[in-house]
Amino acid sequence: MTEADFLARLRTLPLHPGAHDLADDTAALAGLTITTDTLVEGVHFLPHDPAGDVAWKLVATNLSDLAAKGARVEGILLNYPLRDAAWDAAFLDGLAQALAAFGCALLGGDTVTLPAGAPRVLTVTAFGAEAAAPPRSGARDGDALYVTGTIGDAGAGLAIARAGHGDAVLLARYRRPRPRLAEGRALAPLVHAMMDVSDGLLIDAARMAAASGLAVAVELGAVPLARGVTDALAAATAGDDYELLFAAAPDAALPVAATRVGTFSAGAGLTLTQDGDNVPLPASLGYQHGLR
Amino acid sequence: MTEADFLARLRTLPLHPGAHDLADDTAALAGLTITTDTLVEGVHFLPHDPAGDVAWKLVATNLSDLAAKGARVEGILLNYPLRDAAWDAAFLDGLAQALAAFGCALLGGDTVTLPAGAPRVLTVTAFGAEAAAPPRSGARDGDALYVTGTIGDAGAGLAIARAGHGDAVLLARYRRPRPRLAEGRALAPLVHAMMDVSDGLLIDAARMAAASGLAVAVELGAVPLARGVTDALAAATAGDDYELLFAAAPDAALPVAATRVGTFSAGAGLTLTQDGDNVPLPASLGYQHGLR
Repeated sequence: MTEADFLARLRTLPLHPGAHDLADDTAALAGLTITTDTLVEGVHFLPHDPAGDVAWKLVATNLSDLAAKGARVEGILLNYPLRDAAWDAAFLDGLAQALAAFGCALLGGDTVTLPAGAPRVLTVTAFGAEAAAPPRSGARDGDALYVTGTIGDAGAGLAIARAGHGDAVLLARYRRPRPRLAEGRALAPLVHAMMDVSDGLLIDAARMAAASGLAVAVELGAVPLARGVTDALAAATAGDDYELLFAAAPDAALPVAATRVGTFSAGAGLTLTQDGDNVPLPASLGYQHGLR
Repeated sequence: MTEADFLARLRTLPLHPGAHDLADDTAALAGLTITTDTLVEGVHFLPHDPAGDVAWKLVATNLSDLAAKGARVEGILLNYPLRDAAWDAAFLDGLAQALAAFGCALLGGDTVTLPAGAPRVLTVTAFGAEAAAPPRSGARDGDALYVTGTIGDAGAGLAIARAGHGDAVLLARYRRPRPRLAEGRALAPLVHAMMDVSDGLLIDAARMAAASGLAVAVELGAVPLARGVTDALAAATAGDDYELLFAAAPDAALPVAATRVGTFSAGAGLTLTQDGDNVPLPASLGYQHGLR
């Protein structure tokens, strides 16, 4: 069963009003913003990836969903499979570093043992409070599309991780992403729609446009790239950026640094331009459901 | 690393006040009672177990933790590994039945794919509200130890599942446990300590006594057994009962049916009696951390 089929069948079950029809990255309950992500060894990370980096990324990807809602971080639950002591110890070190870096606390969790040789499956559930919670569906005709930071760093970092050598800053952007928590808090009350860039700038922009019932045009020449990253199209489809993507009026006074990369308009679908000229869409707009 | 070592190291990390120092089955946040449980194929259930029963048990074991706090069920998150369509469909059927049976709603979750041949790892996180939330540490010198329902049914049901034939009622008690939600709501404001019997009556009674700084004596002859269950010692160490175990004054007027099975007193440790005479403790008091 594909994820889309599974989700369609889940939607026939009793859904909580805070589930947002399972169409959002977070749920709402008792004033809390709640999100959960599972990472699988061999799918989302590799067996030889440093355990401390896996811990960091597991926390960071969850907190990035809270950042996109403008939530204040409350805490996390951890579901952890015990397997070998050295990996567990390194994981705990990375977890401690991530909690300290993001002002986050542990609420509880569960530990299990795995059958011999089974890949690790790790889950974090994160809780935030006081979220202004802009939806991904709120973009308006004429809004500008903005993104924080730079795009494609993590994609370049993944290539460096695979090669075993390269720029340490880009590698860190892949291994130790930093969710835009402060930026999300500042932006959330002002923007019309917001989400984090997890699967790729193009696919996530297309999703925001579709959820909002609009078309979006993205200008490749405007995509902000880190030093050492030159291929804007590769950058815009690589994913794992954990930057904030948001829709706001073109003349809005933004409280944080962000780059305008596109425009929403009436219609549907994604258009790509390079220096103002239409260019063909690539075969893959980013990571698709179920592929990682 | 053992679970105990891992927990000890987790306690050195920043803990949320609602984490109860990781010494309780639930966390508290924003008026919610929160619990999470992970089931692993080959550890907590067998590959040939019916998928619908796995879904039911995953929900039921989480809600049993809420029942022990007297919480009203709000909803669940599901972290689900997609693997084969028939199993997924049967899981969804069992999930729908469990949600309907327990008046529970889906809040959200995450789906992942697994590497070929990897055992399924499933997580549910459950949320309850309005809990009176008796701790497991609140038993008082002179309190009676009570348990709801009957004990050992699930242990007998497991033997029936392994044998492939036997009493259908006992098998259902193993495959489709029913958390004592209504009983927990009624009892929670009145009792001094409460927990669910998940690992075995004896080990869970010993844990309640230890958490409360008391000794407890359990009378084997008083343990309530279902029809067809005769070995009280096996029943009291089998686990998976999901009945409520609680401490209350011996003359307390109880709003639900329960059986007195023991007494708390000053001191420490677990004593076992049979018709009033001390008998030796068995080698295993129930499932131990990390063994399932």
